[in-house]
Amino acid sequence: MNKIITVSREFGSGGRELGRRLADAMGMEYYDKEIITEISKHTSLSENYVRQIIEHKPHNLYPITIGRSILYVESPEFSHAQSVYSAQRDIICDLAEKSDCVIVGRCADYILKDMKPYRLFVYADMDSRVRRCMDRVNPEESFTEKELLRRIKSIDRDRAKYYEYYTGMKWGDRLNYDYCINTTNIVIKDEIPKLAALFM
Amino acid sequence: MNKIITVSREFGSGGRELGRRLADAMGMEYYDKEIITEISKHTSLSENYVRQIIEHKPHNLYPITIGRSILYVESPEFSHAQSVYSAQRDIICDLAEKSDCVIVGRCADYILKDMKPYRLFVYADMDSRVRRCMDRVNPEESFTEKELLRRIKSIDRDRAKYYEYYTGMKWGDRLNYDYCINTTNIVIKDEIPKLAALFM
Repeated sequence: MNKIITVSREFGSGGRELGRRLADAMGMEYYDKEIITEISKHTSLSENYVRQIIEHKPHNLYPITIGRSILYVESPEFSHAQSVYSAQRDIICDLAEKSDCVIVGRCADYILKDMKPYRLFVYADMDSRVRRCMDRVNPEESFTEKELLRRIKSIDRDRAKYYEYYTGMKWGDRLNYDYCINTTNIVIKDEIPKLAALFM
Repeated sequence: MNKIITVSREFGSGGRELGRRLADAMGMEYYDKEIITEISKHTSLSENYVRQIIEHKPHNLYPITIGRSILYVESPEFSHAQSVYSAQRDIICDLAEKSDCVIVGRCADYILKDMKPYRLFVYADMDSRVRRCMDRVNPEESFTEKELLRRIKSIDRDRAKYYEYYTGMKWGDRLNYDYCINTTNIVIKDEIPKLAALFM
């Protein structure tokens, strides 16, 4: 069975950087945004739309009232979200079957549970997450610290809802991961050789 | 500055075994029960009594009513608990100054924060904690699974209260640790070489 590492992460914790560098160091494939391109091909939905569906909380069934009854019907967004999740699941399983790999986000820890991946959760304190976001923000965008803080919290909330909706488990609950790694006080690239040793 | 690893752990997660084996593998001193012997010497309280104080939740001030007033006075237990904590803090600082070491429990992560220790939190799911306790229980004692479960929860509750009382922080909150390690699916001794690499 292939060696699989899944990386769940708080927004701004550097989890994506950690995953990418770990894959490089270990000579493993790395999948992150590539999955969105693949989903787009499989579903005929645009990459932008797929990203929107994945990065926002899941759509619920849509209530309509007929007389005194409330019926729950599928909105187009609900139906698309189901197709996207289903395509994502198939693609992630295919990629994991193909070779050793690191997969960031996208409920991969849950989808691949039968392949017994190493499941990482990457986190950091709020100050260092805001600092990290400030450092990588596009110079044309301008965010105040307060706006960034609100954005970080909102993205984490959406990630938690998405994860819970599709897995029935609590996002960030340590029991769902093998190692939780605090990046508050570390320079990620300096830690990679040590971290890689964990999965050799 | 010496290399220090502190190990906080859920009861039954194997955190003590992990700490001891890590110290052996890295040629570092290992402190756990030795600290109780030292506290006993420093405070002239018996080792058993010191252990009781440390392993139970902290004693609060004792309320007495005089007329319509309530006064809070020190019970002997309260005063002993303060002496024990104070002796423990001094001993832990001395040991950490002396050489590289692994220290299990006893708020060492907080006490030594200025020495920037690697702070580990070791945890596991409840089933594997019960199994681990069953395996190491003294054959003369007989616990049902239900009794063990109750005992595990009660010990963790006391550890949490003790930690929160003396540090003002939440026991088990991932932000207080650098690495959280799930021992549910691992054989601890097999993982030690990989884990040791993290701290080389």
